Amino acid sequence: MTVLQAELSFKAWTQAVLTRTEAALEGFLPPATTLPQRLHEAMRYAALGGGKRVRPLLCHAAGEAVGAPAEALDAAACAIEMIHVYSLVHDDMPAMDDDAMRRGKPTVHIQYDEATALLVGDALQSQAFITLGAPALQAPQQAALMRELASASGSVGMAGGQAIDLESVGTRLARPELETMHRLKTGALLRAAVRMGALCGPLSESNPAEREALDLYSAAIGLAFQVVDDIHDVTADSATLGKTAGKDAKDGKPTYVSILGLDASRALAEQLRGEAHAALTGFGARARRLGELADLVVDRAN
Amino acid sequence: MTVLQAELSFKAWTQAVLTRTEAALEGFLPPATTLPQRLHEAMRYAALGGGKRVRPLLCHAAGEAVGAPAEALDAAACAIEMIHVYSLVHDDMPAMDDDAMRRGKPTVHIQYDEATALLVGDALQSQAFITLGAPALQAPQQAALMRELASASGSVGMAGGQAIDLESVGTRLARPELETMHRLKTGALLRAAVRMGALCGPLSESNPAEREALDLYSAAIGLAFQVVDDIHDVTADSATLGKTAGKDAKDGKPTYVSILGLDASRALAEQLRGEAHAALTGFGARARRLGELADLVVDRAN
Repeated sequence: MTVLQAELSFKAWTQAVLTRTEAALEGFLPPATTLPQRLHEAMRYAALGGGKRVRPLLCHAAGEAVGAPAEALDAAACAIEMIHVYSLVHDDMPAMDDDAMRRGKPTVHIQYDEATALLVGDALQSQAFITLGAPALQAPQQAALMRELASASGSVGMAGGQAIDLESVGTRLARPELETMHRLKTGALLRAAVRMGALCGPLSESNPAEREALDLYSAAIGLAFQVVDDIHDVTADSATLGKTAGKDAKDGKPTYVSILGLDASRALAEQLRGEAHAALTGFGARARRLGELADLVVDRAN
Repeated sequence: MTVLQAELSFKAWTQAVLTRTEAALEGFLPPATTLPQRLHEAMRYAALGGGKRVRPLLCHAAGEAVGAPAEALDAAACAIEMIHVYSLVHDDMPAMDDDAMRRGKPTVHIQYDEATALLVGDALQSQAFITLGAPALQAPQQAALMRELASASGSVGMAGGQAIDLESVGTRLARPELETMHRLKTGALLRAAVRMGALCGPLSESNPAEREALDLYSAAIGLAFQVVDDIHDVTADSATLGKTAGKDAKDGKPTYVSILGLDASRALAEQLRGEAHAALTGFGARARRLGELADLVVDRAN
């Protein structure tokens, strides 16, 4: 597979990963015909047929850099995406961001109801760890992936970042505090996507230099992702974003644009792109997709 | 430890397990001084200093029956208890049961706020899987425990049972449907507690007969647990229960008492106690604590 994929354009490669991720998610989620049907239908509504799938792309790209089998990467990528989707479902609820639109369609608590949205998020988190139990992964890999994903999701990862985010509404964070918040809220899971891809490889535990390089790469693109998100919040419209534009500014949330201004934010995104590419030099051609993804993160339109 | 513990009375044994579980939870939860402090404080508020710890007791009892090390059982027991506590925190929220009192103190969304309660539940679920990564457990055990716990927690386990419960409010379930709901909602995690205790043992994978016996045992006590809960809901007061008494009846929720009546429910609990003891005969003295716990489940006052 790796040989064939090396010949693909980046666009064809991303399309191939998106297609296989959608099919894998279909398979890893319980069918809508399984009891309780309404819950399963809502889990599938939340997870399927939308999203940029940035984390699955990163997971596959990192896995290809270390020669991991595609079937193992499917399981890891779907587990990460389920965690990401659960966080969106809960984040959109009235008690949190109270958003009605996500990925261009009504949020789960609007389409169904609040109790269902709560359970959809809870069950998707469990489903992520069920998915890591897939037979394509060996037991020691399953354990290593569990440790990585749980740590990136929890109170010193994504959920912790959301807690800091909540507390920061209406306050003026300094840049170091803003970076801590985003390193947890979005950075931890993006970093986990890269690390988990590498953990699916045959020699994942044995090359600390490669692991360190991947960590530098993912720190840079994690931050870049957020900076670009903040730029989009003030420059793009809701239709392009698939969610409500200008919401952070309206909610009084601190952003890179509100702290640095638009021009300095754009310069920061470019600087981080350069840091990401620099981290990959030791990998040579194997890291081609990771490099292309760093460009995608900075250049994307939504 | 097993030799010493064999000499303990049941009361002294449960006290010893409760004490070590509380200490282990203290250690497995992030300190309240770690950022974000408010989230960590609320996680500890939810998980520490209360609860009957039925699942940790079952986990330790099953582990002792197969000769599992106590430190491994601490990790498994705390992971299960964190899942149980997260489900209580979310279940008490206004979108679900809207309850203000739990374990004799204000629920998390009352003591803190709804957004914090949402994140506390989310982060406790992650923390459960972080806890399964404890060094006292070997990687293949971690993986097996993850598969067991995730499956028991998710949409065809606990969360699925809660979804069926939500849909059943105000309807009149027949007994088979009520049993399906409870087999998922509370039974799945009680069964997981027993199975996970057994998985901590040295020969866990190699004795299908023992595993089957433990499954029969946990199916019986899982159901008994719910029947007794339903009896308490109509016979006990809120102070004894540590939560609002009569709430299921008031909410129009189907219960064993509403379907079978009080006397037949009590007879059913006794029948299930007998089934639980019968399942344990092959274990001999090693299953002493499991037998005593079956009695506790049926005879408990809250």
